[in-house]
Amino acid sequence: MFKINENYLKLPGSYLFSTIAKKVAEFTDANPDKEIIRLGIGDVTLPLSKAVIERLHSAVDEMADQSTFKGYAPDLGYEFLRSTIAKEDYEKRGCQIAADEIFISDGAKSDSGNIAEIFADDTRIAVTDPVYPVYVDSNAMAGRTGDYDPQTEMWSNVIYMPCTKENDFVPELPKETPDVIYLCFPNNPTGTTLTKEQLQVWVDYALKVGAVIIYDAAYEAYISSPEVPHSIYECAGARECAIEIRSFSKNAGFTGTRLGFTVVPKDLKCGDTMLHSLWARRHGTKFNGAPYIIQAAGAAVYTDEGKKQTREQIAYYMNNAKVIREGLISAGYEVFGGVDAPYIWLKTPENMKSWDFFDYLLNELYIVGTPGAGFGPSGEGYFRLTAFGSAENTKIAMERIKNA
Amino acid sequence: MFKINENYLKLPGSYLFSTIAKKVAEFTDANPDKEIIRLGIGDVTLPLSKAVIERLHSAVDEMADQSTFKGYAPDLGYEFLRSTIAKEDYEKRGCQIAADEIFISDGAKSDSGNIAEIFADDTRIAVTDPVYPVYVDSNAMAGRTGDYDPQTEMWSNVIYMPCTKENDFVPELPKETPDVIYLCFPNNPTGTTLTKEQLQVWVDYALKVGAVIIYDAAYEAYISSPEVPHSIYECAGARECAIEIRSFSKNAGFTGTRLGFTVVPKDLKCGDTMLHSLWARRHGTKFNGAPYIIQAAGAAVYTDEGKKQTREQIAYYMNNAKVIREGLISAGYEVFGGVDAPYIWLKTPENMKSWDFFDYLLNELYIVGTPGAGFGPSGEGYFRLTAFGSAENTKIAMERIKNA
Repeated sequence: MFKINENYLKLPGSYLFSTIAKKVAEFTDANPDKEIIRLGIGDVTLPLSKAVIERLHSAVDEMADQSTFKGYAPDLGYEFLRSTIAKEDYEKRGCQIAADEIFISDGAKSDSGNIAEIFADDTRIAVTDPVYPVYVDSNAMAGRTGDYDPQTEMWSNVIYMPCTKENDFVPELPKETPDVIYLCFPNNPTGTTLTKEQLQVWVDYALKVGAVIIYDAAYEAYISSPEVPHSIYECAGARECAIEIRSFSKNAGFTGTRLGFTVVPKDLKCGDTMLHSLWARRHGTKFNGAPYIIQAAGAAVYTDEGKKQTREQIAYYMNNAKVIREGLISAGYEVFGGVDAPYIWLKTPENMKSWDFFDYLLNELYIVGTPGAGFGPSGEGYFRLTAFGSAENTKIAMERIKNA
Repeated sequence: MFKINENYLKLPGSYLFSTIAKKVAEFTDANPDKEIIRLGIGDVTLPLSKAVIERLHSAVDEMADQSTFKGYAPDLGYEFLRSTIAKEDYEKRGCQIAADEIFISDGAKSDSGNIAEIFADDTRIAVTDPVYPVYVDSNAMAGRTGDYDPQTEMWSNVIYMPCTKENDFVPELPKETPDVIYLCFPNNPTGTTLTKEQLQVWVDYALKVGAVIIYDAAYEAYISSPEVPHSIYECAGARECAIEIRSFSKNAGFTGTRLGFTVVPKDLKCGDTMLHSLWARRHGTKFNGAPYIIQAAGAAVYTDEGKKQTREQIAYYMNNAKVIREGLISAGYEVFGGVDAPYIWLKTPENMKSWDFFDYLLNELYIVGTPGAGFGPSGEGYFRLTAFGSAENTKIAMERIKNA
């Protein structure tokens, strides 16, 4: 009789967004006249840029003609996209990353979930708290995280690194030694960042203890502060200890178009084995490439026109972030993030529970956000608002909060 | 110090297509005047159909307008596509499959590799021999296949079910009991099929011993014989024991466009746990949906125009299959498959080694095919030709073989 992977049964329900949806639906049913403003979700709302749309159309036309039709893509992704990324995202920032160290994928979520596969079964992971849930869940599915305690909302075999206002959202080096460290900066959900010097501390630590850093830089395009690194490869030694994951979702609005990439430098080794070889094997065995038309559109993001339009979209969202930050501050809230990231993380007033604050915002001000507790125990007492709404709604929401 | 998943190191090199490419390049360099015809690869060559192209363009336009822009897709895939598949691929064939039992993905390769994850570590798998390598490799990566013996080209803990002309390419029920059985029909690489009665034997067996059948039906659209089932759910009891994987690659030419789906019926359980819940969790954690524009294009395959154009493309390839079959037969070859599948499997003359026959075809007739040994030990002495070339080249290749 076949048996299932019982590790799946240990996973707690992922109630966060379904609970939010249920509460919003109940409120809307009871109050059909109230205009709800949604600042909870991390999904973009602006349409794809003109440069991307034009390239999608021309790539579709290529697929209509036998002489330009594209079948199976190369395993690693098309060379035109990999070499563009190597030049634009790395060489121009002084990072040495070769085109064949870049693996094109269908997005950062797939990569950040699948990357766990290339490590040993008894790998010990460290994560920041609060955290994007995929890092922990994918390792839980592989049976590495011990048991889940619903009281503490923590797994027995995961090293948690709290990020709170007490440590300025800069995680401390863990006391126990991890094998793999997940870092996401600019951070989801807190919207905070590390300076290059702060990130170098982590690279040095990983090199010292022999750990690998999985660096999720999905929000890199939102960085404007010069002291904040766009890539972990800006730090000395990172080629020997870090994998970097990037996304087209938030810079170019590809959440529903799907494109991302992962960098595995050839200097990152366990004994004689390059992790690059393992990921190449995984990619070649369980993935068959991102669609040609979408890889072509991804390259259009790096054209002069594409860059200009992407910058305009980011400026639009970051203006929302500014409106939210300033609105909350003038209303007396303690606010973090939102400067180099599209997320604003606020301290709930008078240490209100984050779900109670959710109910208050929904029921009194008709605003939907995300309770910090949904991202981990250290998120309790915090709340996330996102800059991905429309400028008009964002303004109205802040007026409601200021006048409350 | 971090450790890698050492199971990856046990994998033999995947030399098949790289060896072929190298041999072809060497020949071309030495003989630049010879016109090589490639009938080796399983990739389509006809452009996307008009219905698909038009829907791609209109879906791209939707992504250009804020009011119709699509961000993150639903985890399972868009309802419009799932319900179309439920109706067209299942209800119309008398199979009871609900829309919410269908999981849209980026293709059958990802699904057939990732599906192994939801089973226990000590799962014992059975595969046909020859076989599509992803089934075995993905389980080898999970450490379930024992050790690889380069002499026999077999793993110590895999149950192999030879499919040769001696058993009419119908696998026999295994003597040892497997937990998971991989079946691919119409078969890659042999191009052979099972009748509904023959497949029912497997469903009955799986129900009796408590095994799960992973049924890869990627080539379903090429079936024309009425006794050959298009879905395993045409067999009684399959909802309790079978997962079915489908692809848009070969019917609609989506090899470079990427779309597929997997059916996990809610009646398929281990104790009280539905495999459906596990796959939904896997899908929701490590995948973020197929692109909207491509799901929209997938639905266009099922419109009246789309169906007509798809049938025409399949007829074109199946005419090539007929030309290859008849050409080989008239040249005295023993030929299998190619009736309900785009693959023709031939017995090498005088039990020639399949790589020797490869060299003969390349060096003497300038034709590239695939040696059967590349698909497993029971593929030795066989050779695969595919119907995906142009009609003209296919004809010329057969003339060369007939005149040899």
